[in-house]
Formats: sequence, C-alpha cells, structure tokens
Amino acid sequence: MHAAARALQAERGRHEITVPLVAARAGVTASTVYRRWGDLTELLADVAAERLRPETPPVDTGSLRGDLAAYCEQYLEEMSSPAGRAFLRDLVASCGDDRPACRCDLYIREQIGVIVERAARRGEPTPGVGEIVEGVMAPMMYRILFVADPVDLADARRLVDALLARGGGQPRG
Amino acid sequence: MHAAARALQAERGRHEITVPLVAARAGVTASTVYRRWGDLTELLADVAAERLRPETPPVDTGSLRGDLAAYCEQYLEEMSSPAGRAFLRDLVASCGDDRPACRCDLYIREQIGVIVERAARRGEPTPGVGEIVEGVMAPMMYRILFVADPVDLADARRLVDALLARGGGQPRG
Repeated sequence: MHAAARALQAERGRHEITVPLVAARAGVTASTVYRRWGDLTELLADVAAERLRPETPPVDTGSLRGDLAAYCEQYLEEMSSPAGRAFLRDLVASCGDDRPACRCDLYIREQIGVIVERAARRGEPTPGVGEIVEGVMAPMMYRILFVADPVDLADARRLVDALLARGGGQPRG
Repeated sequence: MHAAARALQAERGRHEITVPLVAARAGVTASTVYRRWGDLTELLADVAAERLRPETPPVDTGSLRGDLAAYCEQYLEEMSSPAGRAFLRDLVASCGDDRPACRCDLYIREQIGVIVERAARRGEPTPGVGEIVEGVMAPMMYRILFVADPVDLADARRLVDALLARGGGQPRG
C-alpha cells in the first residue's frame, strides 16, 4: 500500500490522489484502505513517517559539533526539499491517536541519541537529547514550516554553536 | 467568505467541507472561490491565519519574564486546543507563494516585538525577538505538532527561564 501511494505521489499532484486510486494501484479494495487507515490523510501521514525513517546511523565525523552539523545538513536536505515539505504537511495533517508525526520526532531523537552517546564515549561534554531537539531541531522545523526565507546550513551551524557555547553539557557515559 | 468557511467548520468535520459548499454559504459561485484562492487548502489556510491574527497587544504584567509567560499561556491555549491544532494543520498544508503560515510567524514576531520594546523601555536586559522565537516559541510549536505529550505552561516557563538565564540580552531602546 505504501508502495502504491508513493508511486501515485511521484506521478500526480497531491489533490489528484484518492483512496480508490491508491487501492486500485495496490490491487485491493478501497474498503481495505479505509479499514486499516481510516482515510487518505492518515494513509499519507503513515507513508510520510515511513519515508522519514532513518536507514543508517548518523555520520561519525569524530566530534560532537561535527556530528550535529552533519545531521543538520541531512535533516535540512530531507525536510526543506519540496518532497520533504510535502511529507511534513501530510504528517501534520494527521490527527489520529497514534500520530505519525510523533514517529518523526522519535526518529530524530534516536539519531541524536546515537550522536550524544558517541560524544559521551569520547569524553566530550554534551547537552542532552532533549536540549538538542529544543535548541537546534525545533527552530529549524519552525523555520521550514512558518518562515518564508529558506533555512540553510549556516543557520543550522549557528544554532549548534550557540547550544554548545552555553556549555551546560557534562560528559556522560 | 471567511465567515462562510468558519460557519461550516463549526458545523461539519474537516473532510466534509468543499469549495462548492463554502461558495453556496457565502452566496457566490465556486469559480469565484477558485479564482481568488486556487483551492480549498489555500482558502482554509487563509481563514486559519486570519483567526490567529492578534486582536489586542500582549498583556503588560510589569516585567519581561511575566509578559513572556503570559504570552506563552495565551499561545498555548490558542495553538494546542483542538481548534488551534486544526488551524495549524490548515496553515501547514498551504504551499502557495504567499504562505499564510508565514503570516502566523509575523503575528508572533509583532507581539513579541511589543514585549521586547516594553522591556527595553523599563531598562530590563532583553534577548532579541529572533532569540525569543527560537528559544521559546519554536520549541513549543515543535512539541504541539510532533510530540505526543501535551506541552503545558510549566514547559513554557522553563523555556522562558532558560532563555533569560542565558543572559545574552542587553538593555535596548
């Protein structure tokens, strides 16, 4: 079903996609889709969350600052591209109890958790995962969703530097 | 047209609203709506941005910390209510050139600008508007959109306190 939805998304505009079209492409009935996902919004949010699932651990550059900058670069490439913005729109549109948008946040925390653990193993002082999400990822997401000027890697580096300069972090591990 | 859309939103589920319904309620043809807004997504985003336009200046509590806490409280009430989340979904769904989501950010910056000016006039050291948006409003918005646990006023106060404790602000004005 995800493959069918992805294929249609590649071919058509968002407004042309319907549950019967996705079902037909996947070779099932529309009622199967409604039973499993409720409606098109929830199906597309599920597809979007799946597309944002990380396939590899974050790059190890040898330092916390470098790892965070590299992760930000990848996050920006994914999220601020036209396809990424469409995924974000689909995620935010979902309002089911088990919102796929929350899976997106969990993926982000998992990746940052790997970066923080590596820093602790190197003996580097490091802010916690929550502080990094609030100090770096949340402002980038806000910019992507609500601000006309595109956010770029220089902005991301400034956020990382400001967070690390606060020096609240302690070596952990 | 906004009034017609708002009336329908109060009566029906999001998925039952269509351009012909809104047009009929407003006493115009559907083609008038398409000409002015392009499609339903853009119309609803425009309605949402209008609903988020502040009607009064932020409350003056006598201190920067108090003004920011009071503004956060109002922002949380508006944005994290079911109606507020629906507005946010409508805003984020829009992808027009002049995105209504950006108007939402401008309203936030205007209100915080008033708070920062007041603080400067009192001689209080204050972070800039951009620092407050990044340090307080963006993390709250991220939590509202992507995190399952509801964000509450205690979280907002913690963000305000952390920002002010950083002490990067200078008296301005």
